[in-house]
Amino acid sequence: MRFAGDASSLAEALPGAEVLLVWDFLSDAVRDAWPAADSLRWVHTASAGVDRLTFPGLLESDVTLTNSRGVFDRPMAEYVLGLVLAMAKDFPGTLAAQARREWRHRETEPVAGRRVVVVGGGPIGRAIAGLLGAVGMDVELVGRREFDGLPRRLPGTDWLVLAAPLTDATRGMLDAAALALLPRSARVINVGRGALVVEPDLVDALRERRIAGAALDVFAREPLPADSPLWALPGVIVSPHMSGDLIGWRQDLVEVFRDNLARYQAGEPLRNVVDKTLGYVTTGGGT
Amino acid sequence: MRFAGDASSLAEALPGAEVLLVWDFLSDAVRDAWPAADSLRWVHTASAGVDRLTFPGLLESDVTLTNSRGVFDRPMAEYVLGLVLAMAKDFPGTLAAQARREWRHRETEPVAGRRVVVVGGGPIGRAIAGLLGAVGMDVELVGRREFDGLPRRLPGTDWLVLAAPLTDATRGMLDAAALALLPRSARVINVGRGALVVEPDLVDALRERRIAGAALDVFAREPLPADSPLWALPGVIVSPHMSGDLIGWRQDLVEVFRDNLARYQAGEPLRNVVDKTLGYVTTGGGT
Repeated sequence: MRFAGDASSLAEALPGAEVLLVWDFLSDAVRDAWPAADSLRWVHTASAGVDRLTFPGLLESDVTLTNSRGVFDRPMAEYVLGLVLAMAKDFPGTLAAQARREWRHRETEPVAGRRVVVVGGGPIGRAIAGLLGAVGMDVELVGRREFDGLPRRLPGTDWLVLAAPLTDATRGMLDAAALALLPRSARVINVGRGALVVEPDLVDALRERRIAGAALDVFAREPLPADSPLWALPGVIVSPHMSGDLIGWRQDLVEVFRDNLARYQAGEPLRNVVDKTLGYVTTGGGT
Repeated sequence: MRFAGDASSLAEALPGAEVLLVWDFLSDAVRDAWPAADSLRWVHTASAGVDRLTFPGLLESDVTLTNSRGVFDRPMAEYVLGLVLAMAKDFPGTLAAQARREWRHRETEPVAGRRVVVVGGGPIGRAIAGLLGAVGMDVELVGRREFDGLPRRLPGTDWLVLAAPLTDATRGMLDAAALALLPRSARVINVGRGALVVEPDLVDALRERRIAGAALDVFAREPLPADSPLWALPGVIVSPHMSGDLIGWRQDLVEVFRDNLARYQAGEPLRNVVDKTLGYVTTGGGT
């Protein structure tokens, strides 16, 4: 067992290695060190998204790629529901008034009956849609075969939740044209990947109040640079890519890898094998 | 139709009046002006709680008392679920870090499977219990016949939600002795009436970190005085008695009264008649 903290130490560690566990899922070290992978048969990532691993070298190889499908589904669904309620009930306004010791009554929005479009038909999207439906929201789930149809679903949408994998089909899917189709009362939640959104277009829409708000857990660049306008836009909640990370999540991720490693050593089929042409796991009924 | 803004103008308006609509449900004006009520047959309050109206003069009279049961149930349930998620997912910490443009990843708590005790078996308590159960929490509802049994339910409770009417049986029910039974990880949510809680005892428990936090929407004195320690205690969310107040709620309250007024004028039985000896409506299967 060898450890590597960056691309150059990974390039030193890779020769002779059969199995690679990728812990830092936002790093490009695997791509950069790829020429040194002379014996690799399996790459496992401690994440749901595999976007940093679908580079040509790995895609064109016969190396198996697996992910940590399942660990994040329910936590992310709870997080998204929390964000919906926090914005509907104006908790940011409540906390700001509290800090000023100010008693400022406001009327708030219901969530029951409100229309939400969840983009991403994998297990995370399905968990989000299920939980939002359980509290009475009117949920539409847009899966991978329906991404092209997103624009016609945007008018009349109160909440747009992005939970799709980052692929060629989804990159930049929320751009100025899509934002222009949302009602002014709409809010956007992104817990997928920052690059699903054209960030400058979203900033413009928020600045000009063409939509009512956004809660963003993922960004084009992470950590979000201190000079990003997103930190201080009205109606925006910024969180540091933590929507799926419960206390104990690292141990959960280790268990997913350990289970697959036992299968690998026993010569059994691995779990959560990513379809490298699509960019996500297709077993388990994903739509 | 006559309007009155305080006890003295109410005392002038009451003589000859058959019907009184109480809009300011936290005012003692009705009690103070009661001797002037020479013809009153029916008092309706634009609230769920009737604690300011259960004074001896009204209780001993044959005046019918009705409330606005139903308007607040679902909104309050959503609000409570939002508070649970906001604290479990540390949204206050997220918003504070955002204000400093600081990327500070944290691990958060699940809500599914966590044990919650909801005190208050009326429609509000039942709506809260139903919604928390719908997101997978392990909910126990403590109704009016079980208030005495609350203490033995407190050990092992992750979330204690107070949504009971304020009566002699519930006043001060969350005192130092009850707080001492909660685990250190427990959080308290009060959306009922401030006087359900012995506020100084709660302040002590929070200050000494004997419980993990509280979200308070109601207080012994409202508006909460600017010098109250509750505004700035760690782990505490203070909101200004707004948990049930959706956009349009005032119109909903008017409709409830209008419906009952039509019944009154037609000589039909009124809806939401309060059992004046118990302090809440008993029709509709309350436990």
